[in-house]
Amino acid sequence: MTKAVFYHAGCPVCVSAEQQVLDIIDGNKVELEVVHFGEGKADRIPEAESAGVKSVPALVIDGNVLHINFGASMDDVKKAVAA
Amino acid sequence: MTKAVFYHAGCPVCVSAEQQVLDIIDGNKVELEVVHFGEGKADRIPEAESAGVKSVPALVIDGNVLHINFGASMDDVKKAVAA
Repeated sequence: MTKAVFYHAGCPVCVSAEQQVLDIIDGNKVELEVVHFGEGKADRIPEAESAGVKSVPALVIDGNVLHINFGASMDDVKKAVAA
Repeated sequence: MTKAVFYHAGCPVCVSAEQQVLDIIDGNKVELEVVHFGEGKADRIPEAESAGVKSVPALVIDGNVLHINFGASMDDVKKAVAA
């Protein structure tokens, strides 16, 4: 089973991308976790950065990062969740 | 059936992203076409640009563009296929 994590921060770009990714992913092959930094998941930011996430939305598949569109840089995310 | 087109230009970033996208997409829900501009598909560039593709690799799902990572701008692609 492939493990995938979709990291996002609730921005409109993220939410739109999330819906499209959820729509096309094969649930039989992929175990998908969605992590929304803005909803109590700010403690997952270091994990995302360690995986190589530079911006959100991003999809990490078995440790490989796919950055999708360009919603917000991780620096912007850190500022937003700290505010 | 959702129709999706994965546009790319053969760069290493594109090929890596293509493999990952193919791995996770649900073939029962998504009819996926892969368009490699560098292999005789340069005539599809206007169609991609009309759909809103700004860089490759990009996945267009039912008309919505997901830019994945950042391989090459469409201007670079046009220069490469013209060379």
